[in-house]
Amino acid sequence: MKVVITGGTGMLGRRLALRILAKPELVGPGGASEAVEKLVLFDAFEPVEPPPEDPRVEFVTGDICDPATVDALIDCETDSVFHFAAVVSGGAEADFDLGFAVNLEGSRNVLEASRRTARCPKIVFTSSLAVYGGERSIDDLTALTPQTSYGAQKAIGELLVNDYTRKGFVDGRTLRLPTIVVRPGKPNKAASGFASSILREPLQGETVANPVSPETRMLILSPKRAVQAFIDVHNADDDVLGRNRAVMMNGISPTIGEMLDALRAIGGDAVADRVRSEPDELVQSIVDGWPWFADGARARALGMEPDASVEEIIETFIAEELGGKIEG
Amino acid sequence: MKVVITGGTGMLGRRLALRILAKPELVGPGGASEAVEKLVLFDAFEPVEPPPEDPRVEFVTGDICDPATVDALIDCETDSVFHFAAVVSGGAEADFDLGFAVNLEGSRNVLEASRRTARCPKIVFTSSLAVYGGERSIDDLTALTPQTSYGAQKAIGELLVNDYTRKGFVDGRTLRLPTIVVRPGKPNKAASGFASSILREPLQGETVANPVSPETRMLILSPKRAVQAFIDVHNADDDVLGRNRAVMMNGISPTIGEMLDALRAIGGDAVADRVRSEPDELVQSIVDGWPWFADGARARALGMEPDASVEEIIETFIAEELGGKIEG
Repeated sequence: MKVVITGGTGMLGRRLALRILAKPELVGPGGASEAVEKLVLFDAFEPVEPPPEDPRVEFVTGDICDPATVDALIDCETDSVFHFAAVVSGGAEADFDLGFAVNLEGSRNVLEASRRTARCPKIVFTSSLAVYGGERSIDDLTALTPQTSYGAQKAIGELLVNDYTRKGFVDGRTLRLPTIVVRPGKPNKAASGFASSILREPLQGETVANPVSPETRMLILSPKRAVQAFIDVHNADDDVLGRNRAVMMNGISPTIGEMLDALRAIGGDAVADRVRSEPDELVQSIVDGWPWFADGARARALGMEPDASVEEIIETFIAEELGGKIEG
Repeated sequence: MKVVITGGTGMLGRRLALRILAKPELVGPGGASEAVEKLVLFDAFEPVEPPPEDPRVEFVTGDICDPATVDALIDCETDSVFHFAAVVSGGAEADFDLGFAVNLEGSRNVLEASRRTARCPKIVFTSSLAVYGGERSIDDLTALTPQTSYGAQKAIGELLVNDYTRKGFVDGRTLRLPTIVVRPGKPNKAASGFASSILREPLQGETVANPVSPETRMLILSPKRAVQAFIDVHNADDDVLGRNRAVMMNGISPTIGEMLDALRAIGGDAVADRVRSEPDELVQSIVDGWPWFADGARARALGMEPDASVEEIIETFIAEELGGKIEG
């Protein structure tokens, strides 16, 4: 089968690419798992890490806002599209027009190009907790009341995916992700970035500021489980999804204090003491608007499992990203 | 103040125009009710009924999908915009691209033109029960899960209004309307059209088919109350609205049997006997997906009242549209 990943060099796009190249796991048009014969990784930029070295991989740069580019990308041989390309939360808030161009018009371009193939490809759309607005606990029936432009654009994308699917133009599925922890790489400016930094930096010998109170809870999911969730949603039976194509992925809900306790248990005092408390009212107020608890019955019905514990999340990060070694 | 009504020659647009020309009821930029000095009625077509004869009225035809047209319409003197222009439910279902062009891009054009005025005009956006999907009872917190393209476009419009308002580009407000009964004029092809026809036609001496069972409930509101609701939402205090700018208007919830009983009580047997039962499975199945009961606390908090009874709705129609006379 032919698969397209937009945002294919990003953290999740790249991991998903490596995973689906490794074994035939995606359910193809025939209804059974098929090998990927061609994998197109699309992104706006030349990748920082080189694309996977594999004869099946083609790397394409371009602008998702340009309909002709997306039409050329998603052709009549395309079976499945994973749509990650997006301006992230902070970027969409800073540049309103860019956010709507990429996150709304870009997603419509993906749906329109898919519709034009006239073969109803599977589209897996990436959504986020940012579609919610202020509830402490969320479930599959919680109303979407986004409080950021990014959240509004993701909620609109979900509505488009549902309607294009209802009309039979695409076989769309949406995955709503918790905060991804531990994100590898350098700190970024996303308001949620600290939740990864307070674990990632100390394990590599760096000190780091924790901007929020120990009682603050975060709803989190590891990159590994997120990649599995994308495969699960792609492969889900149509009748489990029904008319609302969005699946809210469950996460675990540790407090920041519990996350730091787990870091101390695994890394020891020297590692844990690299985290200093540095309250930031702005970050605290943003994070206080995010949900703490998710009770997603649909994800459970699809067998989609969150991580077992913070300890598991940290151990996986050490194994996958640090070659098993920490700076004690 | 200067007011623009898109869809200004439609059933609700025209009624609202006559109402706000008659007395100074709209709260203007100064925070008090102000007289309308200029009223622009915009529509895609030349009106069937001539626009109100009033020196303050200007009638403009044009395409809401054209950004330059909408920019010229909503200029730097515009204080308030009532946005009715839309492809209706059946039309948006029959022509997917036209529905998205008018109902999504057209609404974005209205928001963008308003943003460009840099004076944060009030925008009142018309939404509908079509944003819901299959719940028997709805309240202000019910998730929007539209089952038609029209409903998806209205739900997207609500998200846009919320985000443009949060950013301070416009002072947006959304009114979600029940089914309007009694619509005057000729029968149309909307699935909800029968709810008006079974009252309107018999009162004018015409026979009419009732496609649904007597036990079916409809959530209905008269045109008169709808116009009042638009004025109320326009004038609502910002702090009552808060971040979610949508107000779900309450209606009354008679069964079709109760509607026909009221028709008999008012018009007599000769009128009521003009309704013949002619079950239509398709219409029944569509109507069965619509909510029966609305419990809108926000509308109540804003003092927005539905009609008192079906009898009141019928009596108002006879007085306003039939000159007080029925064909007995």
